[in-house]
Amino acid sequence: MNDLLSAILAGDRRALARGLTQVENDSPQAAALLDGLFPYTGRAWVIGMTGAPGTGKSSLVTALAKAYRAQGQTVAILAVDPTSPFTGGAILGDRIRMRDLSGDKGVFIRSMATRGSLGGLARATRDAIRLMDAAGFDRILVETVGAGQSEVDIARAAYTTLVIEAPGLGDDVQAIKAGILEIADVLVVNKADRPGADNTVRALRTMLEIGHPASRQAMIRHHGQMVAAPETPDEANLWIPPVIRTVAIDGQGVDELLEAVENHRTHLALEGRRTALERQQTEIEVYERLREALIQRLLAEVPADAIEAILARIVARTLNPQAAVKALLDQYSQKPKQGA
Amino acid sequence: MNDLLSAILAGDRRALARGLTQVENDSPQAAALLDGLFPYTGRAWVIGMTGAPGTGKSSLVTALAKAYRAQGQTVAILAVDPTSPFTGGAILGDRIRMRDLSGDKGVFIRSMATRGSLGGLARATRDAIRLMDAAGFDRILVETVGAGQSEVDIARAAYTTLVIEAPGLGDDVQAIKAGILEIADVLVVNKADRPGADNTVRALRTMLEIGHPASRQAMIRHHGQMVAAPETPDEANLWIPPVIRTVAIDGQGVDELLEAVENHRTHLALEGRRTALERQQTEIEVYERLREALIQRLLAEVPADAIEAILARIVARTLNPQAAVKALLDQYSQKPKQGA
Repeated sequence: MNDLLSAILAGDRRALARGLTQVENDSPQAAALLDGLFPYTGRAWVIGMTGAPGTGKSSLVTALAKAYRAQGQTVAILAVDPTSPFTGGAILGDRIRMRDLSGDKGVFIRSMATRGSLGGLARATRDAIRLMDAAGFDRILVETVGAGQSEVDIARAAYTTLVIEAPGLGDDVQAIKAGILEIADVLVVNKADRPGADNTVRALRTMLEIGHPASRQAMIRHHGQMVAAPETPDEANLWIPPVIRTVAIDGQGVDELLEAVENHRTHLALEGRRTALERQQTEIEVYERLREALIQRLLAEVPADAIEAILARIVARTLNPQAAVKALLDQYSQKPKQGA
Repeated sequence: MNDLLSAILAGDRRALARGLTQVENDSPQAAALLDGLFPYTGRAWVIGMTGAPGTGKSSLVTALAKAYRAQGQTVAILAVDPTSPFTGGAILGDRIRMRDLSGDKGVFIRSMATRGSLGGLARATRDAIRLMDAAGFDRILVETVGAGQSEVDIARAAYTTLVIEAPGLGDDVQAIKAGILEIADVLVVNKADRPGADNTVRALRTMLEIGHPASRQAMIRHHGQMVAAPETPDEANLWIPPVIRTVAIDGQGVDELLEAVENHRTHLALEGRRTALERQQTEIEVYERLREALIQRLLAEVPADAIEAILARIVARTLNPQAAVKALLDQYSQKPKQGA
């Protein structure tokens, strides 16, 4: 076992920081490190937190971290900056927050962005979570801006996903939210002391009811609670995302939020639900890695000028994309082994 | 040449509708159809239009279509509903708009959603555009809600991408927008008669200046114009996205918008810029198709229970994902041909 690996497992923060840099850069050492650490993962509870700019997401991360610290849990925070697939420039503005947490040895904070390929951030996020997990943190809070792919990626790496809203941001509660509901285990209306908070809560509840028509009755009975005493067989496996009001900057509602997260954790612990979730997340990860490995291996065999020639023919409309792919496969790739 | 193919090339609308259904369903006939149509594509100008709910995007699509019709151009409209990668449910609410356009034979309107795999909508969008293009429409307006991946996909299929904003939607102009600027060729502030429009315009201009620091001087001189008489070598290749104010419902600013789109079209027509853009888009498409073809071919050889066994071992932390991928490649896939 190499030194960095043992230092991370021993909870050495500088070693963890070094390991995270390797993961972020996708360096060759990172792969070896992850090989060694993997058996020690799966202990932390991973909480994804996503919300649009203006929802006070960072304040809520800070407040939740403090609440966990007050309970004696150690907390790692991973702030993920979604990378543009076009130029690779990292986003998210000022991160001069979370100052309240500095100096506490039970808290570790890291921002991460990648300048890599599309999908690179999803990989780096998963791997960074594994390092923090192996380093022994009890809770890992993974934060990203609510912008499409990055929040889907977070939901695929977290056990409990919080979607954060705020009143008065003027979103139609219609289109964008429909996708969000599918990733949310807990909905948070932050800045709940502002005008319009009741409307936001009501709109989210209505969407939940529309989104879960089969469970409408269950929702009316159990709103915001784990269904502990199901009245129908369908309810037994049902988690209805609660809608929690918070005012992160003065801590209002944070205990309720923490309770909702822990309820979801308890829910997943029952009847193999966590295993089912991890199996699904693992399948997505393995297929992503397979796709990437297969194409990298193929492209390594194709001369750059052959690729350029093919692209030029497609642009000139003398070769169509399907035929181009077929030609590349025929020329450079063997068929898979039959009945292996 | 099959009947459907010749009917589409002849501009038969019912044939086009039937072909689009095949593309949407990714049917075997669709592949043959696209093979046959591909040489006849590349004539239409493809305009991507993306914006959050509440920006009045659909009204603007309608207004732009009418403006093109007034110029005698034929217009196809493709409204793309981003599919959730989790459940495959299509989104976008009421589409009872665009009624103004019905009955005009120079306009063709189609909504599209997919219930397929992740990436399926990007493929279907590209292919649907090709059908409309081969059917002879002069302009193709492709509309999607501004939500992450779908707008990136649109920018990868369009020649000119419009990003639509509106005053008072309360977005921080900070995080989400940074990605949007990289895909926008033209920025539109719709509902420009509302309070706050000046602020929205100013915020977008500021972001453009931050986003293009090297071209700040050029921007100050040429704001909103094609750089026809560059003062520095860097400016020669520069397109600075203009910020156009519109009130789509009464047609204000629509002529200016149309002019901005046509300016961008002229800009791309010069010095091989369009070829460079198409080469880049084609590369992304070919790699996406290669990835998918390679993994489908591999997985066809792997028994389902072997996959399940591997996933179970990963969830149990007795096998790590990298090692699992390596094992799958070693067992089921030959190495690519050497030096083919």
